[in-house]
Amino acid sequence: MNALLADAIAIVSKDIDEAFEALLPVPRGPRAQLYEAMRHATMNGGKRMRPLLVMAASALFDVDRRCALRVATAIECIHVYSLIHDDMPCMDDDDLRRGKPTVHKLFDEATAVLAGDSLHAIAFEVLADAATHPKAEVRCALSLELARASGPAGMAGGQMMDLVAETTQFDLLTVTDLQALKTGALISFSVEAGAMLGEAGAVECAALARYARAIGLAFQIADDLLDVEGDPALAGKALQKDAAAGKATFLSLLGIDDARAEAQALVTQAIEDLSIFGDDADLLRAIAHYTLNRDR
Amino acid sequence: MNALLADAIAIVSKDIDEAFEALLPVPRGPRAQLYEAMRHATMNGGKRMRPLLVMAASALFDVDRRCALRVATAIECIHVYSLIHDDMPCMDDDDLRRGKPTVHKLFDEATAVLAGDSLHAIAFEVLADAATHPKAEVRCALSLELARASGPAGMAGGQMMDLVAETTQFDLLTVTDLQALKTGALISFSVEAGAMLGEAGAVECAALARYARAIGLAFQIADDLLDVEGDPALAGKALQKDAAAGKATFLSLLGIDDARAEAQALVTQAIEDLSIFGDDADLLRAIAHYTLNRDR
Repeated sequence: MNALLADAIAIVSKDIDEAFEALLPVPRGPRAQLYEAMRHATMNGGKRMRPLLVMAASALFDVDRRCALRVATAIECIHVYSLIHDDMPCMDDDDLRRGKPTVHKLFDEATAVLAGDSLHAIAFEVLADAATHPKAEVRCALSLELARASGPAGMAGGQMMDLVAETTQFDLLTVTDLQALKTGALISFSVEAGAMLGEAGAVECAALARYARAIGLAFQIADDLLDVEGDPALAGKALQKDAAAGKATFLSLLGIDDARAEAQALVTQAIEDLSIFGDDADLLRAIAHYTLNRDR
Repeated sequence: MNALLADAIAIVSKDIDEAFEALLPVPRGPRAQLYEAMRHATMNGGKRMRPLLVMAASALFDVDRRCALRVATAIECIHVYSLIHDDMPCMDDDDLRRGKPTVHKLFDEATAVLAGDSLHAIAFEVLADAATHPKAEVRCALSLELARASGPAGMAGGQMMDLVAETTQFDLLTVTDLQALKTGALISFSVEAGAMLGEAGAVECAALARYARAIGLAFQIADDLLDVEGDPALAGKALQKDAAAGKATFLSLLGIDDARAEAQALVTQAIEDLSIFGDDADLLRAIAHYTLNRDR
């Protein structure tokens, strides 16, 4: 990892932790456990990939860092709520997340449902607040696109497809669709949100959209590779679950070598898409490389 | 039920069913089940109490019916998502809702989680859309307040308290807090949303807020009474679960007679709060009476 990326990750990780600290003070009384569960899930040393993308994309347009950080926090709320629900026994049934017990293991399933639902609501509360952008039109556009990226035509739809994949053998096109929704939509929105905050022009938006789509797919292929070749201790979660379930993935359909070559081609394309931004996009370039070269 | 209310319920029920029909076309392919689950949960003859309140309150200010209906649909999305999640085995574990199988019984638990999450996202997608109100400031204010009413300081927080109530004996103040969050917050927002859409003045907003708080509490006491005295066939769900669980309710703390008197006093107060609106508020008055005189 280069120094530019390492610094940016360190800063955004600290900023996001502080944002959750401020957003989730534990109340006295019977709602305390709900907040403890949200704090456990949000402040556990995640990669903060989506916040990093928001900050890197919005920096291209000199967006106020405090505004960008609010949007980054909202997106991370959505990401974390999806992890909490996805880890539940009726979904992926995972006991560990980033090396720590999942919310339903540490608390119980009902608390996991409600902690996920609560973070979901908080995401839209944060976006709608005037502190997120001076223009209400921009805040509404952000809410609309986040809802689309996370709803049944986005992330939740991709998770539904992932459930169906357990009993149906998908082809490459359907697996690509699945991943474009399940993880791609929120990654794309993270980049797009930077452009929306900066009220970027059409050419810049289109370039960033292509970049985001490419790294989203590369990120997922890298996840598949990690699932097969990775170290569970470094990953902090159970691995090789897809293969055990007989689920079609990029890897099972393309083979390791072709999957790796495809991911590399996507990263190369993503970096070319950034050419119009010159040196200003060096952090986004470093992120593109990093999607392939990570150990968790 | 008077004719004014019966007509209004018939119209809003038809309008909301049509809104969900338009909002939830079933896509081909592996996401179909997600949409079928959402359609099953949203189009099953619910009381549409919250949409009715939005329509009745917004009519006081001559709000465009199409705008009001969009907000009513968004609120009903939130209400229905909460029912889907609340019915799950890890929460209330209910097999029947309005006389039909709950989502996790008809499909499975994973689909119930995702159908709830999807409706949650759709609510904010609907609110943020320009068709909901010409002014983005108003749309942002609606999103902000819906997120607060449904999140950890609102509905989801009330549900957390309800879980804690299974193992802790609450006093009357805490039960009142619980209900104010669990059902009161969304009922209050339904009335408030009408005022927000109509950009009502402070005096009108305050009167409607008092009205909403009173009928929300009366509604919940009536629910407790129905739980003890109601007919499961008419209610379309299992009854007397709170008593069986030994949970503190208005009824267990006040006794039937005092609870009924308290609910009656709340309805009387709610109707007095409407005096500044004259005859225009007759539908809201009829709704206040109806909170106590219903069989489901």
